[in-house]
Amino acid sequence: MGKKLTSRSEDYSKWYNELVVKSDLAENSGVRGCMVIKPYGFAIWEKMQAQLDKMFKETGHENAYFPLFIPKSYLSKEASHVEGFAKECAVVTHYRLKSAEDGSGIVVDEDAKLEEELIVRPTSETIIWDTYRKWVQSYRDLPIMINQWANVVRWEMRTRLFLRTTEFLWQEGHTAHATRQEALEEAEQMMHVYAEFAEDYMGVPVIKGTKTESERFAGAEETYCIEALMQDGKALQAGTSHFLGQNFAKAFDVKFANKEGKQEYVWATSWGVSTRLMGALVMTHSDDNGLVLPPNLAPIQVVIVPIYKGLEQLDKISEKVEPLVKALRTKGISVKYDKRDTHKPGFKFNEYELKGVPVRIAVGQRDLENGTYEVARRDTLQKELVPAEEVLDKIKGLLEEIQENIYKKALDFRNDHITEVDSYDEFKRIIDEKGGFVSAHWDGTKETEDKIKEETKATIRCIPLNVEKEAGKCMVTGKQSSQRVLFAKAY
Amino acid sequence: MGKKLTSRSEDYSKWYNELVVKSDLAENSGVRGCMVIKPYGFAIWEKMQAQLDKMFKETGHENAYFPLFIPKSYLSKEASHVEGFAKECAVVTHYRLKSAEDGSGIVVDEDAKLEEELIVRPTSETIIWDTYRKWVQSYRDLPIMINQWANVVRWEMRTRLFLRTTEFLWQEGHTAHATRQEALEEAEQMMHVYAEFAEDYMGVPVIKGTKTESERFAGAEETYCIEALMQDGKALQAGTSHFLGQNFAKAFDVKFANKEGKQEYVWATSWGVSTRLMGALVMTHSDDNGLVLPPNLAPIQVVIVPIYKGLEQLDKISEKVEPLVKALRTKGISVKYDKRDTHKPGFKFNEYELKGVPVRIAVGQRDLENGTYEVARRDTLQKELVPAEEVLDKIKGLLEEIQENIYKKALDFRNDHITEVDSYDEFKRIIDEKGGFVSAHWDGTKETEDKIKEETKATIRCIPLNVEKEAGKCMVTGKQSSQRVLFAKAY
Repeated sequence: MGKKLTSRSEDYSKWYNELVVKSDLAENSGVRGCMVIKPYGFAIWEKMQAQLDKMFKETGHENAYFPLFIPKSYLSKEASHVEGFAKECAVVTHYRLKSAEDGSGIVVDEDAKLEEELIVRPTSETIIWDTYRKWVQSYRDLPIMINQWANVVRWEMRTRLFLRTTEFLWQEGHTAHATRQEALEEAEQMMHVYAEFAEDYMGVPVIKGTKTESERFAGAEETYCIEALMQDGKALQAGTSHFLGQNFAKAFDVKFANKEGKQEYVWATSWGVSTRLMGALVMTHSDDNGLVLPPNLAPIQVVIVPIYKGLEQLDKISEKVEPLVKALRTKGISVKYDKRDTHKPGFKFNEYELKGVPVRIAVGQRDLENGTYEVARRDTLQKELVPAEEVLDKIKGLLEEIQENIYKKALDFRNDHITEVDSYDEFKRIIDEKGGFVSAHWDGTKETEDKIKEETKATIRCIPLNVEKEAGKCMVTGKQSSQRVLFAKAY
Repeated sequence: MGKKLTSRSEDYSKWYNELVVKSDLAENSGVRGCMVIKPYGFAIWEKMQAQLDKMFKETGHENAYFPLFIPKSYLSKEASHVEGFAKECAVVTHYRLKSAEDGSGIVVDEDAKLEEELIVRPTSETIIWDTYRKWVQSYRDLPIMINQWANVVRWEMRTRLFLRTTEFLWQEGHTAHATRQEALEEAEQMMHVYAEFAEDYMGVPVIKGTKTESERFAGAEETYCIEALMQDGKALQAGTSHFLGQNFAKAFDVKFANKEGKQEYVWATSWGVSTRLMGALVMTHSDDNGLVLPPNLAPIQVVIVPIYKGLEQLDKISEKVEPLVKALRTKGISVKYDKRDTHKPGFKFNEYELKGVPVRIAVGQRDLENGTYEVARRDTLQKELVPAEEVLDKIKGLLEEIQENIYKKALDFRNDHITEVDSYDEFKRIIDEKGGFVSAHWDGTKETEDKIKEETKATIRCIPLNVEKEAGKCMVTGKQSSQRVLFAKAY
């Protein structure tokens, strides 16, 4: 395992990076800004994918796959879209290498220059709407409810494992509708699906809201989002769902004949979550000892470690443990029985603590004699002796309890870090000293938003939904405001 | 639906392309050589993925994810590897676009040229072995058994939906072992896994064998393969598994300390199947009416079509059908009840025939009166009346029967198309007139292999495993040969 993790209080950012690497989630690759997602990290991502995919299908979506490459000219068709993405595009210009004439290695073959450069997709609206044009003639062809699991590339200058990488994995939903209302409802629905996933599976409480115009997706008329709060008091945007109006339909000429036979442009949404969620998961729950994983997403929910001297003792322990492993698996619980003889129990305890396994069972000679198991939970680090006949029910209950507990802990922390302020001075003080979300009145202008961002590094994370309107005055300009919005420094 | 499909006898290649598009599996995109996999096609691919993934995990593999981009210099490190792939690489040279100064649109920003060009992965050995170097120190770190589901890009001049596309989806396994023997066994094992999948799930009989040196993967010491036969008598390589020796370990300096503390190079395998399997699936079973899907991979296994006049009759039919739908689903059978009022039964029959749904149930007024269902199977187009109380068991049995029957039909066809020949003249005649596999003696030299390929377009598909050695003379040169090999024209 090597030496201990840097603590969160010492250096939160360093703690995060060390933890991601040491717990075998991911590491940097030899390619600038691109990461390797290691098997343990990928197993968590697979569980996220499986659950999200189920939720997408239950809400009527199907999966499909569109090309990785986007012709440069497609990107230009929606003006604000190209403006948003052009500066971070990986561009393919050639399709062949050849040996250098001076024998120094291989070089790009200049004879194999593409007529039109291709962009590695930063997001797929353009290639997808170019396709939808061929699929839509009549209102009978609508809605189209498609999701894609894919890799995308955005050339980022500063990258961090999971949180911001040049290539990342995500899903992107792209739907097409006959009416504005239906598209709006779809965009809102997917925000709710994301929130449900974050809270019930990741154990991460989120605030639902809409983005201000300047924080919106490039090409959207409205961006719905879910915002989470990390332990260092910084916010993290965990998912977005966009109402795209008719912007892409107009850019790609996607029309349909309505019931009256009249041609109309199609209404669109797009929505996505990415491997960034892995970062949110780590930063919400983990502690100075390592990961704390929610049982609903943990690749290993229960680990059993035998404590023994000599192989004869181990055999006796195994005789008792193996039926338990089977019984747990029958209940759909994923269990690992780690009887490696190459590592000591203490080493294994540290390893599974670092890797955030929710429940650890230890069993030694004395437990055999007393008919007990030592059951430890990762979230609170509490241990107790459980009679063998109760252990199965205990584990099942404990997994549910841990899932609830880590959510509640994160929720309490988040709620303790929403501060209402009415003056700009207090705002600055809270943003600087306490962090978290700051709820304040804002006059609704980009100028004020920019000024606050420049002076404090805090941005408007969202205009929260489902809160009471409350008239007030902008903390900066004193102008009228009808609702508080949430500010925070953010990842 | 439009007009009928071109028939196979008329133009096999045209039949295939039309079928793939009309049955909603896939279509060409606006990006040269890249396809859009449509929801119906992707649903089949998802089923393939799920089953393969299960089989990989059962054989001890874990999933992970490695970068899309490979620095150009990595590719150069294994000499035969770069030679094999350099000519079909998409190369990223820039990371930014900007507005053209003359206002003509967006152009590549020449100031944002990469210091080292990046290759879009054509396969991931190089980036993965660069990573494995960091993971392997001791024999305790071995084996590494990793699989990746990913997209890859090979710049192809002539492309065809699923069979050969510039971008395709695949899985690539990359394993690292302490001994030559263990790596060889892994490579062989994965060939068997692929064969089992092809035969039991796709219903596609395959021949297992090894490739000749000139047909081997670039960088492999041995390539195991499974070869299938299409209805036009051409072979299709359906999966390959490579024993890579120590080539990549040497190129990337991946060594481990063995039990005696001595440094050794690691032994490697890689293995993959791709969306090409979709092409094999379509071309093996389908007929002039459309797709014929194996029940084990069909997104819809059973479709129920009501035949009615007026909504009152429909309601009565639905009352009877809906409990059946539930009962079938409880048995794990995927059912669609198509009660769309916008299309006539005849239209629906054609649609599901085109889409290869294995079983179709029709139910009308007379069936209600008689307590029957009309059950039709897609593979033989046979229909029968089944008493309502027997229909559940009937369907379950029928799905198994269809799965077996289409495999057997393909197997008979394949076996009828393996011809043993002993003279080169007869070889040419069979290759030209009958097609299929031709089993012949060959002297083992590249010269003869090249000559045969040039003169007949037939290549050695494999040196089959598990066949009796039989001494003979090369049909071309008369030199000694110890085993017949299989030739065919191939996709």
